[in-house]
Amino acid sequence: MKPTLADATRGRVLFGGDYNPEQWPEETWPEDVRLMRDAGVNSVTLGVFSWAKLEPEPGRREFGWLDRLMDLMHENGIGVVLATPTCSPPPWLGRLHPDTLPRDADGRIEWWGGRQHFSHSSATYRRYAAAITEDLAARYAAHPALTMWHINNEYCTFDHGDEAAAAFRRWLRERYGTLDALNSAWGTAFWSQGYDTWDGILPPRRVHYLHNPAQVLDFRRFTSDMLLECYTAERDIVRRHTPHLPVTSNFMPLWFGQDAWRWAAEEDVVSVDLYPDPRDPLGAQRGALVHDLTRSQARGPWMLMEQAAGPVNWRGVNHPKPRGLNRLWSFQAVARGADAVCYFQWRQSRQGAEKFHSGMVSHAGEQGRTYQEVRQLGNELARIGPQVAGRHSGAEIAILHDWHSWWAGAHEGRLSTEVDLPDVLHAWHRALWESHLGTDFAHPEHDLSRYKCVLVPQLYLLTDTAIANLLAYVRDGGTLVSGFLTGVADEDDRVRPGGMDARLRELFGIRTLHEWWPLEPGETVECDGFRGTLWSEEIEPEPGAAETVPYKGGELDGLPAVLRRGRAWYVSTLPEPDALRALLARIAAEAGVRPVLDGLPAGVEAVRRGELLFLLNHGREPVAVEVPGTHHELLGDTTVTGEVTLGRYGVAVLRS
Amino acid sequence: MKPTLADATRGRVLFGGDYNPEQWPEETWPEDVRLMRDAGVNSVTLGVFSWAKLEPEPGRREFGWLDRLMDLMHENGIGVVLATPTCSPPPWLGRLHPDTLPRDADGRIEWWGGRQHFSHSSATYRRYAAAITEDLAARYAAHPALTMWHINNEYCTFDHGDEAAAAFRRWLRERYGTLDALNSAWGTAFWSQGYDTWDGILPPRRVHYLHNPAQVLDFRRFTSDMLLECYTAERDIVRRHTPHLPVTSNFMPLWFGQDAWRWAAEEDVVSVDLYPDPRDPLGAQRGALVHDLTRSQARGPWMLMEQAAGPVNWRGVNHPKPRGLNRLWSFQAVARGADAVCYFQWRQSRQGAEKFHSGMVSHAGEQGRTYQEVRQLGNELARIGPQVAGRHSGAEIAILHDWHSWWAGAHEGRLSTEVDLPDVLHAWHRALWESHLGTDFAHPEHDLSRYKCVLVPQLYLLTDTAIANLLAYVRDGGTLVSGFLTGVADEDDRVRPGGMDARLRELFGIRTLHEWWPLEPGETVECDGFRGTLWSEEIEPEPGAAETVPYKGGELDGLPAVLRRGRAWYVSTLPEPDALRALLARIAAEAGVRPVLDGLPAGVEAVRRGELLFLLNHGREPVAVEVPGTHHELLGDTTVTGEVTLGRYGVAVLRS
Amino acid sequence: MKPTLADATRGRVLFGGDYNPEQWPEETWPEDVRLMRDAGVNSVTLGVFSWAKLEPEPGRREFGWLDRLMDLMHENGIGVVLATPTCSPPPWLGRLHPDTLPRDADGRIEWWGGRQHFSHSSATYRRYAAAITEDLAARYAAHPALTMWHINNEYCTFDHGDEAAAAFRRWLRERYGTLDALNSAWGTAFWSQGYDTWDGILPPRRVHYLHNPAQVLDFRRFTSDMLLECYTAERDIVRRHTPHLPVTSNFMPLWFGQDAWRWAAEEDVVSVDLYPDPRDPLGAQRGALVHDLTRSQARGPWMLMEQAAGPVNWRGVNHPKPRGLNRLWSFQAVARGADAVCYFQWRQSRQGAEKFHSGMVSHAGEQGRTYQEVRQLGNELARIGPQVAGRHSGAEIAILHDWHSWWAGAHEGRLSTEVDLPDVLHAWHRALWESHLGTDFAHPEHDLSRYKCVLVPQLYLLTDTAIANLLAYVRDGGTLVSGFLTGVADEDDRVRPGGMDARLRELFGIRTLHEWWPLEPGETVECDGFRGTLWSEEIEPEPGAAETVPYKGGELDGLPAVLRRGRAWYVSTLPEPDALRALLARIAAEAGVRPVLDGLPAGVEAVRRGELLFLLNHGREPVAVEVPGTHHELLGDTTVTGEVTLGRYGVAVLRS
Repeated sequence: MKPTLADATRGRVLFGGDYNPEQWPEETWPEDVRLMRDAGVNSVTLGVFSWAKLEPEPGRREFGWLDRLMDLMHENGIGVVLATPTCSPPPWLGRLHPDTLPRDADGRIEWWGGRQHFSHSSATYRRYAAAITEDLAARYAAHPALTMWHINNEYCTFDHGDEAAAAFRRWLRERYGTLDALNSAWGTAFWSQGYDTWDGILPPRRVHYLHNPAQVLDFRRFTSDMLLECYTAERDIVRRHTPHLPVTSNFMPLWFGQDAWRWAAEEDVVSVDLYPDPRDPLGAQRGALVHDLTRSQARGPWMLMEQAAGPVNWRGVNHPKPRGLNRLWSFQAVARGADAVCYFQWRQSRQGAEKFHSGMVSHAGEQGRTYQEVRQLGNELARIGPQVAGRHSGAEIAILHDWHSWWAGAHEGRLSTEVDLPDVLHAWHRALWESHLGTDFAHPEHDLSRYKCVLVPQLYLLTDTAIANLLAYVRDGGTLVSGFLTGVADEDDRVRPGGMDARLRELFGIRTLHEWWPLEPGETVECDGFRGTLWSEEIEPEPGAAETVPYKGGELDGLPAVLRRGRAWYVSTLPEPDALRALLARIAAEAGVRPVLDGLPAGVEAVRRGELLFLLNHGREPVAVEVPGTHHELLGDTTVTGEVTLGRYGVAVLRS
Repeated sequence: MKPTLADATRGRVLFGGDYNPEQWPEETWPEDVRLMRDAGVNSVTLGVFSWAKLEPEPGRREFGWLDRLMDLMHENGIGVVLATPTCSPPPWLGRLHPDTLPRDADGRIEWWGGRQHFSHSSATYRRYAAAITEDLAARYAAHPALTMWHINNEYCTFDHGDEAAAAFRRWLRERYGTLDALNSAWGTAFWSQGYDTWDGILPPRRVHYLHNPAQVLDFRRFTSDMLLECYTAERDIVRRHTPHLPVTSNFMPLWFGQDAWRWAAEEDVVSVDLYPDPRDPLGAQRGALVHDLTRSQARGPWMLMEQAAGPVNWRGVNHPKPRGLNRLWSFQAVARGADAVCYFQWRQSRQGAEKFHSGMVSHAGEQGRTYQEVRQLGNELARIGPQVAGRHSGAEIAILHDWHSWWAGAHEGRLSTEVDLPDVLHAWHRALWESHLGTDFAHPEHDLSRYKCVLVPQLYLLTDTAIANLLAYVRDGGTLVSGFLTGVADEDDRVRPGGMDARLRELFGIRTLHEWWPLEPGETVECDGFRGTLWSEEIEPEPGAAETVPYKGGELDGLPAVLRRGRAWYVSTLPEPDALRALLARIAAEAGVRPVLDGLPAGVEAVRRGELLFLLNHGREPVAVEVPGTHHELLGDTTVTGEVTLGRYGVAVLRS
Repeated sequence: MKPTLADATRGRVLFGGDYNPEQWPEETWPEDVRLMRDAGVNSVTLGVFSWAKLEPEPGRREFGWLDRLMDLMHENGIGVVLATPTCSPPPWLGRLHPDTLPRDADGRIEWWGGRQHFSHSSATYRRYAAAITEDLAARYAAHPALTMWHINNEYCTFDHGDEAAAAFRRWLRERYGTLDALNSAWGTAFWSQGYDTWDGILPPRRVHYLHNPAQVLDFRRFTSDMLLECYTAERDIVRRHTPHLPVTSNFMPLWFGQDAWRWAAEEDVVSVDLYPDPRDPLGAQRGALVHDLTRSQARGPWMLMEQAAGPVNWRGVNHPKPRGLNRLWSFQAVARGADAVCYFQWRQSRQGAEKFHSGMVSHAGEQGRTYQEVRQLGNELARIGPQVAGRHSGAEIAILHDWHSWWAGAHEGRLSTEVDLPDVLHAWHRALWESHLGTDFAHPEHDLSRYKCVLVPQLYLLTDTAIANLLAYVRDGGTLVSGFLTGVADEDDRVRPGGMDARLRELFGIRTLHEWWPLEPGETVECDGFRGTLWSEEIEPEPGAAETVPYKGGELDGLPAVLRRGRAWYVSTLPEPDALRALLARIAAEAGVRPVLDGLPAGVEAVRRGELLFLLNHGREPVAVEVPGTHHELLGDTTVTGEVTLGRYGVAVLRS
């Protein structure tokens, strides 16, 4: 039986963060430990950026400092998530082995001096990474502080160089078998791109005008797969030493470069790094989307591996978190299934590229507001941990998302660069979030039978299997709502005849899709009862077969904006937020899905997890929430009846 | 006697487009032919992107599929414009001969995987291109379907690499003979750029600060000439095999990279690709400008080689054509001299970089609105073809334009980057178009005696020959109107003493041009009776010699905005559209030029071609047009007297 | 005793400019001399861009033309500032020695064809530069026209290539001695950047994500130092030949790339090139800032080496100077300490990259307004020269500025990219300029005891020495006003504990600096009585110790925006202009600093230099200025009592 997050949490919520004490004199460590204990820290991640410290020159190992740290953690009851340090090779690796450095599409080298300067395809890099991983795993396999493995960090690199080109060819040969199959899948008859030898194939490098879209799609698939190979190679090494300990690698949220469904299947624990802008009015919803997506990938509790206690330092203007926001967003993650609330990083760096990225202990130190709030949170999480860890968060609605579809739909030669899939996903998820409808994410080929309602904000590319899956879902009684630009292309990014799969057109009652009518930035299109944004379509419906909401005025006057045929809905524009919320709430209600709680004031989020009801006030004004019946409020340890009052950024955790 | 477009049209208007059936299984071909015949297609262009198909590996020819296609076309009465496939070399060419790949000013290679990845200066590329052209010409010279040759496609490449550098030196040596002459022409005394050997000369590559403008100008001349050499080399091959057939290469409209006057002289047929944005309120005028320019280059009927039946896919947001617009703009082209209305491409691709660029048969297929409208148009063109093909479209006004002047005026070190020559040309042409004044384009050294009025929106660089030509034109009774930044530089981009040629200053009555006063974006300058944009000037007129319209207020208060001395006018700003239209209409009227028709409603364009009067409604509302007398309307085959009503995007073709 | 500017001015104000007659036939020279004499030109700069002319091929010297020029100048009483021509090597240098060409962080070469295409670290370049300098100095050491040496021109290059990398390593080895010291100073423990050999260190080249900030800081220090080495090498050569003549190199104003304090110490004359936008409403203040900064670097009279008589050609839109502005701004420079008013260039080029950059003689020639105004100015300067040259301009307020702090604070990973140090400096200087308070600039380690008031708009990095200097200054009775982001980092860009140096926090009465709150573009924050921009801070003051102005509303409500503890002020936001002016004027008044003149009308600047009072009207309307007592006005040679009237852009120079 595979280890899971529960093997690390053991009935608690993990609380802590990246700890990089090699930046500090060892005299600082006892002070760190005292503050950690005060703050309820029970888990730290060590070693993410320690390669140069562990292997200061090729082959020489320096483990002493890490031994002392592991022991110190253990003595203080703090578990260690130990990282392989392979995301930032020491300068000597690039110096001695320039073949390990990646190149971009213009042929420019990415040098050391930052981080992640490794080519996923470099045999040399992989050899050195395996060696340090092996030694690290061997040394600490039996250490009592060790609770989990953390492989590399935020895999996100690419390489267009020659060694990557050779790897790309091998990957393609495996995928297609023959050049004929590749030429067919890539449509190389267009623009005279037919390949006569495998050797002629390159990564998509700089071209005069527009890349072949299937080549770009396959290169994105290849890149995700190469990074996954880097991951699994290290995972297999540590697993050999500690088969009982779970392994993870931290995702960036909704990250373009990794097929996270495929990756999640190779992880024991799914973890994510999450940094919404504290000034973003929709920051809480953006967080909720990532919580829902990560929980769905984990198929259960997940780990918030990194968040910021205050500002980050990579935006144009980086805002701190106002008083209470760190606590609120942390509880939101727990409500939505997180069993670990961790930060980058414990103590804010005084040097290096991220010295203005906050820490749990900020530059202001122990007296700073940041640490004081972290301490309060840690102690509260310790209190509710046993009642929440491992509990289930279900949902009756699923949003479908697929990286391959995203990749294909993002080609430079598309009809509108205004259409950006994450925006569309956020808009649809927002409609559900504001309606207090619990939401999962799923892959279009997943079993969907447990859901009453399935939403497809946009799946430009759909495999035949996925289409059959959707048809079966509706046939078996499910309610399906699809947005525009869905079912346009097949697995090879070949446009399906009619511009949309014929089976889907029949499902929705579309006779002919004459033309796509993308909208200019800021432009809207009038529909009967609402306004659409981003996109519209010139559709001729099957006569009599479908119920429609028409466009009004303009070139599309009278043509359907929304079609419905039985339990299948098609929405050919992106309705403005209020309209999309009303539409999806109505469809959900018809499908028998109820909100978590009725009559919630604006800005209050309600989430059920196991037997707990979380109430989260995203506003700065106190607000009263009606909650039928009597509950125990865990944070204040009080009994509430009929109503609970939430302060500014307030949280209540209720148990019946 | 040289062949002409008439040898291909033979009394018809050609209708059809690029046909790339190698993207489709051969089973699709009969269906294509059926739809073509239904739509009145009488011409297709084959082979533009077929190099890899024709020569799948170096030296091996695969002509069988093309044989079958040529035969199929012939059997169905469809003529073939056969392309040399040299614009997109097969991947093996770059792989085996990296010297064929171009480099940009930063030294970055343009790889295969897109199109046009060839260096115009590469001897290897030219050798392979000549060989495939030779074999293609030999094989199909006698084929009865063949009506015209199409060389390459949209020549637009550049190269800053080493082989191009060597070719540049040869070109310069031919132009200047001695290094002293080059050093003098380039003004290398400035910034210590004197060359002591030819070998020291480079293309303008990345520099620390500002390139030598004469070097950049000559590099643009050289690039246009190198591409022309590529063209003429292939042209001469096909001409040897088929001296009776016309040859063309398709221009992009008002394209910066080619001296189209010089190119047109080397073509039997002048053809152009035209893609105005369907959402551009001035799209019809932008089209009209290209029609006028291409007709002037052709000195008679011309070929619309490519347009889109629906959207393109290279804008940020790509709009389809609303119902009727494709027909309207096609008739507009015919009205303004086109004897061929063709598209890229016949059937919309399902794969490749342009799968969202429309086709005559769109993804929606035969039932789609796009094809249905194409079919209507094809049949209408067939009906009027015999009455229009080969007919003359004259004009009494000419706008002067010259690529060398454009190139020189576009240097990075100019006074205002807001001044963009195409904008200025469009503004002046718009004034005439909205006044229903037929307009030709001409080169400043052309014989201008047939025109009553000659306009110079802007000719920053004027040769001595051109200046003499303009002076003689006015001396002989012509009316000349010049915009600002005219006559500033000589052929080597050397500023003429006084900042403007002394003879021109005398012509317009300018004593001293003290300073140029460019305007900020959006800024206007008050003149007596109108507002100017973009530019203004501090001019001291010859006392008493000139009639002026003064600037009002500001630093230039009382100085002349417009000067007139006899039949020579100088306009030192860009008047806002209404004012420029009023000014030019007044000058034209004084010069005896009459609009095509008086009292036309807004948005209706009237054009005479031969004995026909075309009326084009660019609005979406029906409109009644007064037309004195009785006419036969050819499209509806009706008789109209005194008035004709045009529907939304409506067209009438009248014959007295 | 070192030579000074006075050795060249000899009681006059120098007037003239760059003279590049090699662009013109020698027949033009006598005409030039006639116009120069008419205009009062007494100094020209020769040879800045003459390398290719002086050394047309490697090792061959052509001095004849320069001999003739030097003689011609001498015969006409015009002194010569002779330039080493090393800023623009001839094409043959790059061709024969590609190692002399610099590379940027992406590895791209900067080629010849522009200017400044030399690597500061290239041994080959330095060898050739020294040779031509040696020969030039030897030849003209005794020439009677020679008055000053001008080394190179606007040093501003960089190099990230391999020879620069080697030089960077040598520079680092000298700075740090050991790798341990470097690793500690750079904080390489973060992100695994520890260096095990000097050979592993690179310039900051392209990285995947964020550079090490200390590495970038040191590379900026290194670059400034390498350029300074180039300068001192040439300076030492010419000094050996002419120990009695002063040496300079012209700065660009407030230029990021040079530590101008350090450079100025190596110059006999501090000179600067100054090009405010004539359309900038704050152009005069921007000029005044540069005057004040340059005078402070020179510790006395300075040289305006370059300005433009009309437009430049490197902005997007380049405006000429309206009538009178050139004169006004020239007198402003003299008022603020300039003893030389010179231009780039004498005669506007007809060719080359700067042919639209104005000259003292513009394209319009002798009759052009530009030359006519230059002539008036030259004659006026000749008249007042003896009364102004060498005179002192003192100030009682100093603004502190340091390049190392600027470099460190500009790192890509900072909290707000909206905060740009020059903007902050300009805002604080503007407050003083509008209050008619004379202002010096000083380095934070300079002796400040002569100032009544010291302002620190922003010194992100402060050395311990500088902090001690500031503390001592306040202790000894000085008034100190500090803006935000001051004292954050130490010399290695290591953030000081608490986010701000503890001694400074104590000085200002700051107990805890909890968080920085940067503002979005255009956002403001309410304070009691004014609004702040750009930045705000969450500060907990020492209770009772400090007097504060609070923030109002929002997250910072009630917290201090401004703190005062005795004579030490801290301003945690950037007040809007009126508020900052009122605040600084109040503090200055309390410190006993008086404006130059009371009751001045808006737009009138008053400056004292020696015994002269300059009144400058920056408005376009005439204005009357009250001036108590009776004065002699030097330009009009009139006596004024109680009031003087200034015309549009008018100037009065009064003597009691």
